[in-house]
Amino acid sequence: MNLDMPRRLVGEFTGTALLLATVVGSGIMGETLSPTSDAIALLGNTIATGAILVVLILMFGPISGAHFNPAVTIGFVLRREMTLGEAGAYIGMQIAGAVVGVMIAHAMFDQSLLQVSEKVRTGGAQWFAEGVATFGLLSTIFLVLKSREEAVPLAVGLYITAGYWFTASTSFANPAVTIAREFTNTFSGISPPDVPGFVLAQLVGAVIATYFCRWLTR
Amino acid sequence: MNLDMPRRLVGEFTGTALLLATVVGSGIMGETLSPTSDAIALLGNTIATGAILVVLILMFGPISGAHFNPAVTIGFVLRREMTLGEAGAYIGMQIAGAVVGVMIAHAMFDQSLLQVSEKVRTGGAQWFAEGVATFGLLSTIFLVLKSREEAVPLAVGLYITAGYWFTASTSFANPAVTIAREFTNTFSGISPPDVPGFVLAQLVGAVIATYFCRWLTR
Amino acid sequence: MNLDMPRRLVGEFTGTALLLATVVGSGIMGETLSPTSDAIALLGNTIATGAILVVLILMFGPISGAHFNPAVTIGFVLRREMTLGEAGAYIGMQIAGAVVGVMIAHAMFDQSLLQVSEKVRTGGAQWFAEGVATFGLLSTIFLVLKSREEAVPLAVGLYITAGYWFTASTSFANPAVTIAREFTNTFSGISPPDVPGFVLAQLVGAVIATYFCRWLTR
Amino acid sequence: MNLDMPRRLVGEFTGTALLLATVVGSGIMGETLSPTSDAIALLGNTIATGAILVVLILMFGPISGAHFNPAVTIGFVLRREMTLGEAGAYIGMQIAGAVVGVMIAHAMFDQSLLQVSEKVRTGGAQWFAEGVATFGLLSTIFLVLKSREEAVPLAVGLYITAGYWFTASTSFANPAVTIAREFTNTFSGISPPDVPGFVLAQLVGAVIATYFCRWLTR
Repeated sequence: MNLDMPRRLVGEFTGTALLLATVVGSGIMGETLSPTSDAIALLGNTIATGAILVVLILMFGPISGAHFNPAVTIGFVLRREMTLGEAGAYIGMQIAGAVVGVMIAHAMFDQSLLQVSEKVRTGGAQWFAEGVATFGLLSTIFLVLKSREEAVPLAVGLYITAGYWFTASTSFANPAVTIAREFTNTFSGISPPDVPGFVLAQLVGAVIATYFCRWLTR
Repeated sequence: MNLDMPRRLVGEFTGTALLLATVVGSGIMGETLSPTSDAIALLGNTIATGAILVVLILMFGPISGAHFNPAVTIGFVLRREMTLGEAGAYIGMQIAGAVVGVMIAHAMFDQSLLQVSEKVRTGGAQWFAEGVATFGLLSTIFLVLKSREEAVPLAVGLYITAGYWFTASTSFANPAVTIAREFTNTFSGISPPDVPGFVLAQLVGAVIATYFCRWLTR
Repeated sequence: MNLDMPRRLVGEFTGTALLLATVVGSGIMGETLSPTSDAIALLGNTIATGAILVVLILMFGPISGAHFNPAVTIGFVLRREMTLGEAGAYIGMQIAGAVVGVMIAHAMFDQSLLQVSEKVRTGGAQWFAEGVATFGLLSTIFLVLKSREEAVPLAVGLYITAGYWFTASTSFANPAVTIAREFTNTFSGISPPDVPGFVLAQLVGAVIATYFCRWLTR
Repeated sequence: MNLDMPRRLVGEFTGTALLLATVVGSGIMGETLSPTSDAIALLGNTIATGAILVVLILMFGPISGAHFNPAVTIGFVLRREMTLGEAGAYIGMQIAGAVVGVMIAHAMFDQSLLQVSEKVRTGGAQWFAEGVATFGLLSTIFLVLKSREEAVPLAVGLYITAGYWFTASTSFANPAVTIAREFTNTFSGISPPDVPGFVLAQLVGAVIATYFCRWLTR
């Protein structure tokens, strides 16, 4: 993170856009090729997302830190490694990049660019799953960052690979991703009324993870 | 393992809980999404568990050694790298964490927190498979630890990835995991009467591996 | 790239041939074993291609730079790291190797050596997908090359793993691959009239990525 | 390879046994869980074999060199890095270990320990595939060994992962493996009359690869 702010923000924007293009695009590919088995569609979705995360963090880590995720950015603020101003700019670019990424996926699959999801994802069990998913993601980042920084890209990619299957919500674990996925009415969508519950659960998980890791590694 | 004991124990507890949440949670996801093909359910179960093991050992290795497994802890006692007292505390936290991990999985999937498995897993072939599985796991740990310590997280994750498919028992290879999985009546469960046979076979495999690796690398 | 030119050219030829043998061969294996599910066929195709790319770049990177791709070679010319003469020789060998690779795949699966694909892949959405795919591939190479050169083989393999699923066109992202795949009338083919659109889109993506990465890392 | 000969031979024996237990065991698991889709069975077989190869080479590389394969051992003889006497002992242990590995797989799955395969694998296309498979395997080993020795375990595991799908024969690429697989009448078997053709093709591929790599890296 020794670059100037414009390059860092372009890094966050581009990385988050490619992340969402992958999440949404591979979901569309999965449900198109496997109309009768959601398990196989989810396998394709999982492998693509886990793989691209490793790549994107390798690419943009040295440029912007490769957060791509407001929950991660807030964690760094709580650790006093970012100012509120920097965080605000990061989060803005993450959300903008995420929405553009969804549009890129739709354009590649010849669908209308912005849609409204009708997929219901709500209830206490789902919120708990998002809290666990985000707690695990931030703990992964903060603990591996401390002991073995060069392994963070692989660790995050593998964590999300697991998260697609072990959390009942398929691990959104990212407020920018959650906001953007309401704009696709495909495999990976989430209906707009269900977004606030997910985001709130993610923030709770993120805050707990930040303090837990601080205590554990003090 | 240069941290104080409370942090080490919290590391073992948290890591084992996340491991079980993944094993049980991804099993539920697999059988839910793929009701007609156990092979596809097992693929999801496999990918999630293999991936999370790499992550958890990267996260908690520098904190607690990342055993998550009484068979591994006993191996370190036999190698005289842990005292019996430390081992007892570790094993207690592993079992407690494992049971809590099962409850977390159930909560995420909106199921009753503690269940009793009805899945029969017994007989000489299954016990032999668990012995082989645990022999292989401990040999992996002890041999890779000696020659290339930084590769242990990847080696263990890949070993279990293979173990799900090549051992007839899907490689429990862990007494704490075995005990905890009797509390879920889902894909990954094991009925309580079948637990002792599995645990005994695992311990036999662990002891043989410990002495085999000591001879091989002396 | 400190070898003499004949060895470098043999490296490009052999690597590209093995790449195409894998893309086409695993596509035939997939459609043969999974006649009713294109998703499962694509999974096999994806895993094989992603895996072999890591291997081939590890093998031939120190010999020829392991481009295997005219779009990559052109990117290096734009960066003034290759002369036009070298690039012409590389591209010639890449295309020749790619066609021979297709013939190897056909010979292994007992099919006629050269075929004409009837698979239609055309239209604005597909072209946009190829542009995105190639932009992402070259950005991966140039950004990871700068900050962490030893991770390039893994990054490229994982990028293409994701690309098979998130781009609607399954990420050809390579003019030599595109030209060669018109000669197979199997899973991975592309009908000859559709080749120019793909190649043009790939070149546009490559040029944009080259200048984008130059700006981002200056 | 600085250990005494008995330990090296035990390393070759144990590693090859675990390799065959995995190849045969995961094949049985695959065909049992997926009776209607050979593609899904092959996916399980592939993932398990690719993963265990990385692990076994990490484990036994520093002990015996982790050949597990007469074709590899012969390659080292041709490179004058092993004597004929050492090679003979290695090959004997590889074949013995391979057969014991098949018996271990059968014991775990409660099948008769030694069987005779009825699976026909023959003809020019299959032999050509085995030649290509073994050429690729030895080229992977010799080229990566030269430039990046620590990446050999990953490279070999990923090469075989790809080989299962891109070669029509699923890449036996190993005479000891081929001999042993005639003793299982399950997914991964090969009927005894078809063994010599496979082994001969493998040896041709191995010799060509050895001289090709010598020229390429001189």
